[in-house]
Amino acid sequence: MTKRPLNIGLVGCGFMGRAHSNAYRSAGQFFDLPFDLRLRAVCARDRKRADAFADRWGYESVETDWRALVQRRDIDVIDIASPNDTHADIAIAAAQAGKTVLCEKPLGRNAAESDRMVDAVTKAGVANMVWYNYRRVPAVTLAKQLIDEGRLGRIFHYRAKFLQDWTISKDLPQGGDALWRLDVNVAGSGVSGDLLAHCIDTAMWLNGGIDEVSAMTETFIPERMHQLTGRVEKVGIDDACAFLARFGNGSLATFEATRYARGHKALYTLEINGERASLAWDLHDLHRLEFFEHGLEGRLRGWRSIHVTEGEHPYMNKWWVPGLQIGYEHSFIHAVADFATGLAEGKSASPTFREAAATDRVTDAVLRSAASKCWERVGAPA
Amino acid sequence: MTKRPLNIGLVGCGFMGRAHSNAYRSAGQFFDLPFDLRLRAVCARDRKRADAFADRWGYESVETDWRALVQRRDIDVIDIASPNDTHADIAIAAAQAGKTVLCEKPLGRNAAESDRMVDAVTKAGVANMVWYNYRRVPAVTLAKQLIDEGRLGRIFHYRAKFLQDWTISKDLPQGGDALWRLDVNVAGSGVSGDLLAHCIDTAMWLNGGIDEVSAMTETFIPERMHQLTGRVEKVGIDDACAFLARFGNGSLATFEATRYARGHKALYTLEINGERASLAWDLHDLHRLEFFEHGLEGRLRGWRSIHVTEGEHPYMNKWWVPGLQIGYEHSFIHAVADFATGLAEGKSASPTFREAAATDRVTDAVLRSAASKCWERVGAPA
Amino acid sequence: MTKRPLNIGLVGCGFMGRAHSNAYRSAGQFFDLPFDLRLRAVCARDRKRADAFADRWGYESVETDWRALVQRRDIDVIDIASPNDTHADIAIAAAQAGKTVLCEKPLGRNAAESDRMVDAVTKAGVANMVWYNYRRVPAVTLAKQLIDEGRLGRIFHYRAKFLQDWTISKDLPQGGDALWRLDVNVAGSGVSGDLLAHCIDTAMWLNGGIDEVSAMTETFIPERMHQLTGRVEKVGIDDACAFLARFGNGSLATFEATRYARGHKALYTLEINGERASLAWDLHDLHRLEFFEHGLEGRLRGWRSIHVTEGEHPYMNKWWVPGLQIGYEHSFIHAVADFATGLAEGKSASPTFREAAATDRVTDAVLRSAASKCWERVGAPA
Amino acid sequence: MTKRPLNIGLVGCGFMGRAHSNAYRSAGQFFDLPFDLRLRAVCARDRKRADAFADRWGYESVETDWRALVQRRDIDVIDIASPNDTHADIAIAAAQAGKTVLCEKPLGRNAAESDRMVDAVTKAGVANMVWYNYRRVPAVTLAKQLIDEGRLGRIFHYRAKFLQDWTISKDLPQGGDALWRLDVNVAGSGVSGDLLAHCIDTAMWLNGGIDEVSAMTETFIPERMHQLTGRVEKVGIDDACAFLARFGNGSLATFEATRYARGHKALYTLEINGERASLAWDLHDLHRLEFFEHGLEGRLRGWRSIHVTEGEHPYMNKWWVPGLQIGYEHSFIHAVADFATGLAEGKSASPTFREAAATDRVTDAVLRSAASKCWERVGAPA
Repeated sequence: MTKRPLNIGLVGCGFMGRAHSNAYRSAGQFFDLPFDLRLRAVCARDRKRADAFADRWGYESVETDWRALVQRRDIDVIDIASPNDTHADIAIAAAQAGKTVLCEKPLGRNAAESDRMVDAVTKAGVANMVWYNYRRVPAVTLAKQLIDEGRLGRIFHYRAKFLQDWTISKDLPQGGDALWRLDVNVAGSGVSGDLLAHCIDTAMWLNGGIDEVSAMTETFIPERMHQLTGRVEKVGIDDACAFLARFGNGSLATFEATRYARGHKALYTLEINGERASLAWDLHDLHRLEFFEHGLEGRLRGWRSIHVTEGEHPYMNKWWVPGLQIGYEHSFIHAVADFATGLAEGKSASPTFREAAATDRVTDAVLRSAASKCWERVGAPA
Repeated sequence: MTKRPLNIGLVGCGFMGRAHSNAYRSAGQFFDLPFDLRLRAVCARDRKRADAFADRWGYESVETDWRALVQRRDIDVIDIASPNDTHADIAIAAAQAGKTVLCEKPLGRNAAESDRMVDAVTKAGVANMVWYNYRRVPAVTLAKQLIDEGRLGRIFHYRAKFLQDWTISKDLPQGGDALWRLDVNVAGSGVSGDLLAHCIDTAMWLNGGIDEVSAMTETFIPERMHQLTGRVEKVGIDDACAFLARFGNGSLATFEATRYARGHKALYTLEINGERASLAWDLHDLHRLEFFEHGLEGRLRGWRSIHVTEGEHPYMNKWWVPGLQIGYEHSFIHAVADFATGLAEGKSASPTFREAAATDRVTDAVLRSAASKCWERVGAPA
Repeated sequence: MTKRPLNIGLVGCGFMGRAHSNAYRSAGQFFDLPFDLRLRAVCARDRKRADAFADRWGYESVETDWRALVQRRDIDVIDIASPNDTHADIAIAAAQAGKTVLCEKPLGRNAAESDRMVDAVTKAGVANMVWYNYRRVPAVTLAKQLIDEGRLGRIFHYRAKFLQDWTISKDLPQGGDALWRLDVNVAGSGVSGDLLAHCIDTAMWLNGGIDEVSAMTETFIPERMHQLTGRVEKVGIDDACAFLARFGNGSLATFEATRYARGHKALYTLEINGERASLAWDLHDLHRLEFFEHGLEGRLRGWRSIHVTEGEHPYMNKWWVPGLQIGYEHSFIHAVADFATGLAEGKSASPTFREAAATDRVTDAVLRSAASKCWERVGAPA
Repeated sequence: MTKRPLNIGLVGCGFMGRAHSNAYRSAGQFFDLPFDLRLRAVCARDRKRADAFADRWGYESVETDWRALVQRRDIDVIDIASPNDTHADIAIAAAQAGKTVLCEKPLGRNAAESDRMVDAVTKAGVANMVWYNYRRVPAVTLAKQLIDEGRLGRIFHYRAKFLQDWTISKDLPQGGDALWRLDVNVAGSGVSGDLLAHCIDTAMWLNGGIDEVSAMTETFIPERMHQLTGRVEKVGIDDACAFLARFGNGSLATFEATRYARGHKALYTLEINGERASLAWDLHDLHRLEFFEHGLEGRLRGWRSIHVTEGEHPYMNKWWVPGLQIGYEHSFIHAVADFATGLAEGKSASPTFREAAATDRVTDAVLRSAASKCWERVGAPA
């Protein structure tokens, strides 16, 4: 069976470029895709780096200017895996060029940027997706199924944290290739856009819209050497951010993210407590879902550790056999599979640009609240 | 060796009366106390209940009016284990009568009440203690030692939760003997005074004073039948409460308590992240302390589960052999041991009334913030 | 209500003497006992030690010769908590004197000794019990209930381990007060009689009789200084022992005990796998039972961690509130409660001497097999 | 940089064929390989199946007779991923044809077969490897490093289990494509060759040679319908097998494998206790290594859960960032990377055929012991 080709043009050769490329290369072996994915071109400003990347991952060609990439007629999909400050321009141009657009998260550096991107894909009528990959960790997808089936009943509480510890050292510089996440001009914000955005995306997917928030932020190390200027400069990002929230469904929430939680590398945890059941998940053991059902016989109630590796679990019939776990990168492979499947019917995959803009609106409200020291309502869509 | 007797007069025959009585009866077998503790009298309004309690626990006599108990000359220590609305009157009278005063937590229903109690014991110059028992769970005491030794370095984060699920049913009434904690007039507040007070006490002991808070509260079930009136009445307590906080040492904190977290019975957890190390503890497995040390060789770093049952651990050389755990009630036994040891030198045991009043000042600020929807500074001591 | 007194005479002031004494002192406050337990006398060869023990625990009198204790007419129950080599003589004399006899485990140093003890209590018609305390850890008792209800179905596997690490040092001597467990003449055997006996007792209680075994033993440190002789002497005990077994019900088992498992203090674990469900338990977190039910909806199956602290759990309605754990010593308190309750109807409590002798028969077969290097059948009762 | 091609010819399109193919396709993106791996041909008796497999995984050609494959001059490496009964013939022919030979485990159905295979590769002087993939789970490789550095000191104990539950149903047939592991003629044995072989391979790698064993086996379901004959036939495999062992270094071991442990899917666990430290690992959470160091300050000792996702951990600098876990298939990718790296220098990768034959000699002794009901010494190499 010859499949229609789908030609990918990737922007960015960093960590996310690798994760996306691996997903493109692997999805077709494990999932029945409606397309034959072709790694047509990769784009990076540094030619040598782009060449090496293309060589390693099998991209057929290289560009050094995304504008050129966006105009190529042999490209169907523009995938943006470059730093946050490039998202809007590339996405808008790609949409205007009629390309399907995929974008790493967060969509924009703020909701205003995101709204412009939503406008562009809407006007162009092109399919789109933002890579909030954790939705497609099978344990998280299973959580979504259980909530949608009503098994939790009325929701009382949601809590999420994303804890890291990699910026504790005062000697770590900011800016430049590997450290652009510490440069506020490039990243837009610190942990709120980087880590909390993940937490907010999952939370709204699982528990609906957030109405209002009260937040605090902190920058523990106020100045760091900037790699591009070579000077010690003020750090503009939030090193840590925590907020209280009320969801539209009446449930209360706490959110927290930091890069100063010694001992935690990428500890994204979430928990949701409902009248009938509760769920908890943890990225450090991403293949497990903790589940508590109140309806069981009283003396046998307990938190159940579901090893999400069975054929009955989301995505898992495509992988190995029960008991054998998958890892981080598989969430991207699942995203590719879902995206390609949807695209065959002309559909965007979730989260769309529109959904990701809603996440940015919460992040904006969080940062506003940290500044105002008041509760802030989450803005309505533009 | 004949020891000086110490004559105890207990007020209250409920859950806490049992916990205290057990502690008095057991402390002397495991610890070398400077006193011979004598259960001289127990007081409860219901004579039959008091008699049965005295019979079971070995109290020599019974009173039905705490005023009479407080005036008895054969009593050295008045121990208040009755509902919150009785604490202030009894404690003040006991202090005025020159008794040593022990009081269940929270000290008062609010800081104003607590301040009056502090005044009373200060003026009377009597030793005093509030039963914040979790400080004396060996794993928590070990945490305190490690922090005091500077092993954590600069503190970035503190987080604590106290999650229960016992009031989810709409059919649960409020008020009366077992359910006075749901009656705002008796309890003063809901989870903030009951559960968060524990979290705040431990937090300030481990991490110093709290400067300001931003809180939210919720009453999920707005009306419940009142057991004393027989009528459906407004519920005045907070069912759930979460708050953000900033400590004097610059660290950020999140706190949360609820009785609507399905699947959790008494899940008091705390975690503290420092520059050099982190600690975590969980009441559901109270004999373990989780510890992460950054200073170890990189590839061997990890969270270490310390089974706090060794002779080198706080209090544990008094109990069994390594590997054999103790339980909830032992924290009260340790409190009795520390209290009696201190008293022999005329000292109060920690937390004193003064320290417990500081906790109430935080709780007050939390409730103020929930009402004002603004950050509130924690009040200075009266 | 005045209760009939039950007069206890305890032999032994060591670790087990403390555990039993604490149980006698505490049982009546938490359980409704048919007797008023009286600590009438404690017996130890060393008068000073006995006096100090009596003073601390409230024994009314002291004996230095167990023969005198056994003959006292004011004693109803002889409780043997002295080293293994004293069990048989005391128990037989006590039975002949018409006393109820309680004995620490293992019953005898070997099945021959145990059989003589069984004969004695049988002929005398006196009630009896052996202190295999772990049966009465609520999580273990819950396991027994579930098995008895048939929830596991056909049993395929049983596995148990008891791992310690306290004798790894070559410098640890053998013999004498605290270290008689290393002296084969006193203890009878090493880990097989000390630790495996616990595993075997629970196993036969939960899973029925053991037919045959294949074992290996090892003495890692072949010589140690003997505290009584002051000379370096051959170590006669087994430092480690593992065995395979087949149960009468067709299930296969592995058992292992050692005092050389670095990092484990008292890690008694057991697991049982049935056609319909599996159970696991671990002494280091004794308040939890792990349970897996196959009958649940497939994608929701998982090992459930039951926090055995609810009122519906065995013994737990006598203690605190859900979520608050009990510890090691409570298993002895439960034994006292069950023993006293049964005694009021003239019944022995489980495990009786007869049941404990069956355990010793397995231990004997294990040691025979380690010597013969062949499978050995477990002997039939004498 | 153009790399030398390395032409792979794969035999087998089943579960293992997928795992190997994925490894060949992915290794070069994450590791710097000295070769350009080319998927030249896949071989399966069923042409349609082979075609579909080739199409999905990118094999350039298809064979239906392994003899043809082995003779192809454009193939450098023959990789045997077909059922056990085919291993010897293919491997011997491939060696004779001068191919590098890779073979799924177990090497042969018994040591006699394995010895012939060792002879063949030795005589031919061809590089070889057996796919005992669990050695290359980073946590297991880290364990190996720690042992080799002497951090554990004298070893006292080793224990390993491999527990599954997929054959409990009586209705499961034996034989045929997916179920050849239940057919003794094809598989050679049951859990001993399938699961224990993994345990033994790792054990000998970590802890040296095994001297003698005492084993038991059981076939819980004695007859099953055979898919190829359509008749109910005797089941010849062992459904469960446990054995005691003594290692050459004096340590004691227990091993167990079964497909009747309800609730466990692929629970391969291992633990090793040394004088100075202990290690434990578990396939269900394969990215964690549990480590206990005795040398730490006493009150801070505990089992440390090392999240093996740091750049300092074996293989992990090739993957993502700290905290992001990898899964099952990565162990195969690591095997390909190590194999290719070694091959460039003409070396075999570990475990070689010779090492894998040693594993089979232990399995043989285990099955002999189960039959003889005696301890059996492990045979010396042929």
